[in-house]
Amino acid sequence: MTDERKTIAFVVYPGLTPLDLVGPLQVLSALAQFDRGYRTVVVGATTDTVGTDTPLRIAPSHTFDEVPSPFAVLVPGGTVPTLRAMSDETLLAWLRTAAASAELVTSVCTGSLILGAAGLLEGKRATTHWMFRDLLTGLGATPVAERWVEDGSLITAAGVSAGIDLALHLVERLAGRQLATNIQFAIEYDPEPPQGGLDWANQPYGDLKPLREHTLREGLAGNPALMGKLLAHA
Amino acid sequence: MTDERKTIAFVVYPGLTPLDLVGPLQVLSALAQFDRGYRTVVVGATTDTVGTDTPLRIAPSHTFDEVPSPFAVLVPGGTVPTLRAMSDETLLAWLRTAAASAELVTSVCTGSLILGAAGLLEGKRATTHWMFRDLLTGLGATPVAERWVEDGSLITAAGVSAGIDLALHLVERLAGRQLATNIQFAIEYDPEPPQGGLDWANQPYGDLKPLREHTLREGLAGNPALMGKLLAHA
Repeated sequence: MTDERKTIAFVVYPGLTPLDLVGPLQVLSALAQFDRGYRTVVVGATTDTVGTDTPLRIAPSHTFDEVPSPFAVLVPGGTVPTLRAMSDETLLAWLRTAAASAELVTSVCTGSLILGAAGLLEGKRATTHWMFRDLLTGLGATPVAERWVEDGSLITAAGVSAGIDLALHLVERLAGRQLATNIQFAIEYDPEPPQGGLDWANQPYGDLKPLREHTLREGLAGNPALMGKLLAHA
Repeated sequence: MTDERKTIAFVVYPGLTPLDLVGPLQVLSALAQFDRGYRTVVVGATTDTVGTDTPLRIAPSHTFDEVPSPFAVLVPGGTVPTLRAMSDETLLAWLRTAAASAELVTSVCTGSLILGAAGLLEGKRATTHWMFRDLLTGLGATPVAERWVEDGSLITAAGVSAGIDLALHLVERLAGRQLATNIQFAIEYDPEPPQGGLDWANQPYGDLKPLREHTLREGLAGNPALMGKLLAHA
């Protein structure tokens, strides 16, 4: 019997930022629980356990080969390992094939840079983590400073925690507002950031700049051509 | 050479809700990155990969035995598997020992029910996921409807996504407001829930009640005494 459910595939590669992945995975797995027309899977080159940028190790449920044509794809971001993943031809080839038939191609944080490396941002409006947004130009995209940016089938989200907002938006788009609200209650998403909202007029860019520089230098050391392309417009 | 860093231990058990774990893990691993006085570890009965309530599988970095006296402990929640974990004597014994010397004992969502099963909520003010808050009374606690509740060394957070707010509060308590703000920028935590904040006057309790009933019935089927204790006041 063929599985008729629409598959939402979350991409794993070594060293990623797990909150980029798990925020939207939790929300869309709840969609799959309440609406049997969907299923979520976690895909990687193998189903072996890989590291993240925290002490947690994670493992995909499926290999890329097992999920060649998902309904939707989500690519999480990270720091050095994400920029390295921009040169991972196995990952990029799967993304190009999957994106050709997928109805939704999405990313969280610097995951959009991987979509860009696969050529999927060309001529599109897109976003990424605020500290890396200027790099989008070198990938053919128009950078936009919004929580998430929708350009046809491409939806890119801002940094890390923005994946939760993106996913609740996707639930509303796919299954309506009431289910999105129910899932929001299920994950009790009623944020109270203890330090208040982000004050963009006082962003601590100086404190975080070493992190950006380290990420670019280490992440792109093996691919000088890509580094040149990204930094030409940055 | 002895490792002098203060260890923040995140507990893993099979079937948990990964966002409960990963939200605060991401924030507190950033604390450890910026302040070398801390380290985060993920602890479990073994370091084998276990399932979650999503298709993602996860693996601890350390066993319980390797981390007998952490500085801080965080217990994530979940549904059926979390109520089952309330009868896991290996987990409860480790929690009691760790809590005796820890400076902070914390939980996210129904993780507080596990702390309660270990006897650690007796006489304390505490919270949990809103749908299960009434169960706290049977564990000797006074339920409080807040995003997080601090009672001495015990800090319990509300459902799932509340762990991010809890963790940013912990960073401010441990390392000051400026670092908490920097980490908030690093995870770009500037929430824009697409459906707005939760409207508690219109909570979809009817839609979600089957989930609560299933969780209690399946999760406590093996422990009728505990079910009686929890439901006596509920």
